Amino acid sequence: MRIVDIIDKKKKGYELTKEEINYFISSLVDKSMPDYQTSAWLMAVWFKGMTEQETADLTEAIINSGERIDFGDLADKIVDKHSTGGVGDKVTITLIPLLAAAGIPIAKLSGKGLGHTGGTIDKLESIPGFSCNLSVAQLISQVEDIGIAIGKQTGNLTPADGILYALRDVTATIDSMPLITSSVVSKKIAAGSNNIILDVKYGSGAFMKTPEDAVKLANLMVTTGKRLNKNITAVVTSMEEPLGRAVGNSIEIIESLEFLKGNIVEGDIAELTYDFAVIALLLTGKFDNEGVARSYLKDLIHSGKALNKFKELIKAQGGTPDITDDYSLFAQPKYKAEIKSEISGYVQKIDAFKIAYGCKLLGAGREKKDDLIDYSVGVFLNKKSGEYVKEGETLYTIYSNDEEKTSLCRQYCDSAFEFNQKVLNKEKSIYAVIKP
Amino acid sequence: MRIVDIIDKKKKGYELTKEEINYFISSLVDKSMPDYQTSAWLMAVWFKGMTEQETADLTEAIINSGERIDFGDLADKIVDKHSTGGVGDKVTITLIPLLAAAGIPIAKLSGKGLGHTGGTIDKLESIPGFSCNLSVAQLISQVEDIGIAIGKQTGNLTPADGILYALRDVTATIDSMPLITSSVVSKKIAAGSNNIILDVKYGSGAFMKTPEDAVKLANLMVTTGKRLNKNITAVVTSMEEPLGRAVGNSIEIIESLEFLKGNIVEGDIAELTYDFAVIALLLTGKFDNEGVARSYLKDLIHSGKALNKFKELIKAQGGTPDITDDYSLFAQPKYKAEIKSEISGYVQKIDAFKIAYGCKLLGAGREKKDDLIDYSVGVFLNKKSGEYVKEGETLYTIYSNDEEKTSLCRQYCDSAFEFNQKVLNKEKSIYAVIKP
Repeated sequence: MRIVDIIDKKKKGYELTKEEINYFISSLVDKSMPDYQTSAWLMAVWFKGMTEQETADLTEAIINSGERIDFGDLADKIVDKHSTGGVGDKVTITLIPLLAAAGIPIAKLSGKGLGHTGGTIDKLESIPGFSCNLSVAQLISQVEDIGIAIGKQTGNLTPADGILYALRDVTATIDSMPLITSSVVSKKIAAGSNNIILDVKYGSGAFMKTPEDAVKLANLMVTTGKRLNKNITAVVTSMEEPLGRAVGNSIEIIESLEFLKGNIVEGDIAELTYDFAVIALLLTGKFDNEGVARSYLKDLIHSGKALNKFKELIKAQGGTPDITDDYSLFAQPKYKAEIKSEISGYVQKIDAFKIAYGCKLLGAGREKKDDLIDYSVGVFLNKKSGEYVKEGETLYTIYSNDEEKTSLCRQYCDSAFEFNQKVLNKEKSIYAVIKP
Repeated sequence: MRIVDIIDKKKKGYELTKEEINYFISSLVDKSMPDYQTSAWLMAVWFKGMTEQETADLTEAIINSGERIDFGDLADKIVDKHSTGGVGDKVTITLIPLLAAAGIPIAKLSGKGLGHTGGTIDKLESIPGFSCNLSVAQLISQVEDIGIAIGKQTGNLTPADGILYALRDVTATIDSMPLITSSVVSKKIAAGSNNIILDVKYGSGAFMKTPEDAVKLANLMVTTGKRLNKNITAVVTSMEEPLGRAVGNSIEIIESLEFLKGNIVEGDIAELTYDFAVIALLLTGKFDNEGVARSYLKDLIHSGKALNKFKELIKAQGGTPDITDDYSLFAQPKYKAEIKSEISGYVQKIDAFKIAYGCKLLGAGREKKDDLIDYSVGVFLNKKSGEYVKEGETLYTIYSNDEEKTSLCRQYCDSAFEFNQKVLNKEKSIYAVIKP
């Protein structure tokens, strides 16, 4: 078998065999294939696509390129949720204690986030004392004990994806449905759960610009799961502006706590958390009626059971549970700048990328794996799309430890807002749910 | 400017600007662009093609990547002929003394051939004493003296093409019209002549499988020349079987001499040589009537003037002119094996690739730049397509210096022949001529 023939075959639009795909991925990982052949193949895939079978074979080859987490008997019971990562996306943090309170075991392993703000692990570790350094054995034992645990992904999962992704990034081949699918699905399957909920974003800030394309991608992900005997549900959601009001690390935990306390009952975070939770309850067969599932979940919030589960999680992983009642126990930023609106009108749009970039300038994220994150900084959106703001009223708030960074951040955030004199129809957050 | 954006733009089918193409080629040559980006771009070009303007800009950028030969005032008068290289293709050798005898100055620089048999330079250097080691100044002085000279291309011509070609070879991106065009045309323009005749082959042994595709490629080459102010004529010719009867090095010189002596008056070699020569006479304005030009050329053969010009060339470049009368002065092969036909019938087809591969096994070509060529070996086709052979009659002859190699060669050559009980209509060698 020669790599140049595999490239040529794909270029001409023929379907690659499982053997050819396995040979390609093993040549990638053992470095016998030079990068220039990989990238030519990636571009050919960008143009010619892949069949469902090829996509599943590629996904499987990527999984087999590295280690695979083994949750044993737990694998069938737990639910894993993945998001391509949106600005202000704290839905994993609101969702997992709610699901655990509903009796669905949560054993989650997350990677270290690279981006303008931290990932789920970083946000949780902004809770003083909280640590995600758990081995798989510790994770399983904690799940057996309290039904919920979250750890840092270590080990060498899907190394082929790492190499492919780095090349795609510099060869304009990111936006290919079979390549995105194999990358996301392989990582989730290697991470050990058999029940997976994927949040597939569309919008200006996402790879898929239209909901129609996002639905296509979601369908391919679900089908790929089916071919590999995994239970994948894909939820197509809009990503036009930051999720919720808080963008940062500890301020996102505070917003999550407010939801768990029942203080946030409407808006995108409440909507998405309930919708995902309902899907998980139906997916695991705990309920078969959506309405009943939804009121059961609301009761878990209003009775304080979800909040209590979060406190148990914090305690089990070394954090200070008191933080849920006393937010001043979080590391505090030196400066708090309330930015006033200069005009009166309805907020029409908030550019998620600009807000995220502003937060990055404050120190809320990392670019390289070893960068340190400043947990205390961030941007709070006092007004979101569809809300009316009067001239002089606070539009957003910057939490910062450096006055110069504050004004740099402000430049980006100021230009992120667009206004209108009319109120506009807001889209629902969830566009479609694709079930297996 | 970022390379990834240039790849993305091409991938989406937009036209690249001259600045973007120049930046791409200069990043290629100064090695600031990694190969994996080059190959992703090549694959995007394979799919999306290039406009005429992009093709001309790419050709110009490749020319400017290296040195350029300066023939001074001679550049407008001389004619250069290029062939993509066919098995047994000795038309350059038959053509240049004929044109020189017609008063068209010939100053030709050829590269060292890589392939199953030698290139034009190798074939000429199979004449004892003949050397192509001429500087450009020596070449010009010899042309002023006797009207004809042929040298080895030295210097660093079109280095960008060398890098691109090596990558295309291993990434299945050879067969792209704008990439073939920029590669061929840039090399010919950098080689210094303003009048260029290109032989564009089609057929099973060529990149272009159909005459229609070859015409498209030829048109693009002519247009590219026009945009760069060069006078290019492209001749679309069939390449289904070896040209002429001799495949090797010195035996190809002998066949060329037979043509120049007037002993070969029909068949592909005679046909192509006269046709190309007529085109050159019309191209340089020496004649405006094809029929008149043709009989003038025939007279140059029958009067011995073309042969004499070849003798002058041999003498001027250190070779033994006596060789034209005494072929035993060539290095002689040890073995001559006349292979007899086992059936009676008309030869229907001779696979050029198999004959060439047989010759390679004998030692007639080189794979690496420093391989030595055995000038004396080769295969002579006693019968060509359309000719009748009786059982027991010689079908072809192997000239060799090694009995084991002879029988290896025979395995390939035996399977190269196909027979038929009827005589078939032979295609004309020239399918179309594309003028500027």
